[in-house]
Amino acid sequence: MTGLLHIVGLGPGNPELVTPQAMDLLASATDVFGYTPYVARVADRTGLRKHPSDNREEKARARAALAAAAEGRRAVIVSSGDPGVFAMAAAVFEELEGEPAWQGLDISVTPGVTAMLAAAAAAGAPLGHDFCVINLSDNLKSWELIAARLRSAVAADFAIAIYNPRSKARPDTFANALALIDAEGGGDRLVVLVRNATLPDEHVTTRRVRELDPQDVDMRTLVIVGSTSTRRVGKWVYTPRRGS
Amino acid sequence: MTGLLHIVGLGPGNPELVTPQAMDLLASATDVFGYTPYVARVADRTGLRKHPSDNREEKARARAALAAAAEGRRAVIVSSGDPGVFAMAAAVFEELEGEPAWQGLDISVTPGVTAMLAAAAAAGAPLGHDFCVINLSDNLKSWELIAARLRSAVAADFAIAIYNPRSKARPDTFANALALIDAEGGGDRLVVLVRNATLPDEHVTTRRVRELDPQDVDMRTLVIVGSTSTRRVGKWVYTPRRGS
Repeated sequence: MTGLLHIVGLGPGNPELVTPQAMDLLASATDVFGYTPYVARVADRTGLRKHPSDNREEKARARAALAAAAEGRRAVIVSSGDPGVFAMAAAVFEELEGEPAWQGLDISVTPGVTAMLAAAAAAGAPLGHDFCVINLSDNLKSWELIAARLRSAVAADFAIAIYNPRSKARPDTFANALALIDAEGGGDRLVVLVRNATLPDEHVTTRRVRELDPQDVDMRTLVIVGSTSTRRVGKWVYTPRRGS
Repeated sequence: MTGLLHIVGLGPGNPELVTPQAMDLLASATDVFGYTPYVARVADRTGLRKHPSDNREEKARARAALAAAAEGRRAVIVSSGDPGVFAMAAAVFEELEGEPAWQGLDISVTPGVTAMLAAAAAAGAPLGHDFCVINLSDNLKSWELIAARLRSAVAADFAIAIYNPRSKARPDTFANALALIDAEGGGDRLVVLVRNATLPDEHVTTRRVRELDPQDVDMRTLVIVGSTSTRRVGKWVYTPRRGS
């Protein structure tokens, strides 16, 4: 029996945004691995073993799923959103690289609606033109690299989607990022904060960079900083297709 | 009767990646608008009027759909992928801005799996760390702006997802972009070309920037240029989560 490992995106939270492909792969799985709240989104069923784990356990989770596939199980790792954007797909390939015995496994990645697309849809179309995507968590990279990327994104007039803007462990990173964007001349840019995108309590807030209170942002918020072209029409925020 | 306009993403092409939300909105629509091949992806049904139109007709299409909603129709505009990424959502808000009479309409945007996520999944996880997203079409912006964004993306070591890399009308843009990336020191970066992502004839090619033949790319190809950290394991290409 040949084992399988599918790395699957569940979308931003609304069950209506889980793709049929994701549902089909979950329906044929024997084992599902993931961060506890994401595994909780998968329906229980006879014959399905659930392996929930904590945040920051990505390495151990990836290895456990690869090991299950190597034993002939049909394993699925679930991520929220899309598994290829700041999620489990890269973690699996990192572990695969060190273990030649696993490199013959049948692996697939199933894309999903990542958080920034759901947030952009809730706000209008702030990612309608060129943009950058930056994870503000500094667990795995230096503040200097984050700052260099923010600076260049402002200088080249990209819109900027920010994942993981703020957590209890690093309450000041987001405030520092805002200060940097302001210092680079981006203080007047529009920002949309979308909390719990696509869920019943979805909430959209629109501000200018320099008016923003960093306290309004938490780990359940996706932040989109507009380019200099980003504008409002009624309640909507959008970036025109025509570049400046 | 109050009209509605839903701006809906159909995903990258595989019917298994159309969300249930998109299917539900299409099931209750009276009118569907879009680029001809995307409208063709919507099943015919009694009571559904189809309004296919040519590429580069975005403005007229947006106005026709808004006018239908204003007449009390339940209109859907379909985009491939996600409607907020180089697609119809921004075009609708551009037209809304000029017509206050339309600003009371009930409008929504339904996100979808955009092409770069499908392409990344086919290749592995090349967008696993910070990245930029650039539309190489210069119909609506200058080459100078495209070049400035490419330069800054290379300098700040982002991976780069490139939409609309090459067309018959501008056969040299992509070659110029590659030459620029090489000149900025990015010639050794990995590039994945994914043609017809998620369709039966999906094809993934991996090269280094300076080895790439621009002729291998067309409008049905999504290009992802890796960061300096992007690497291979077996047939897969991925960008580790740890920043340099």
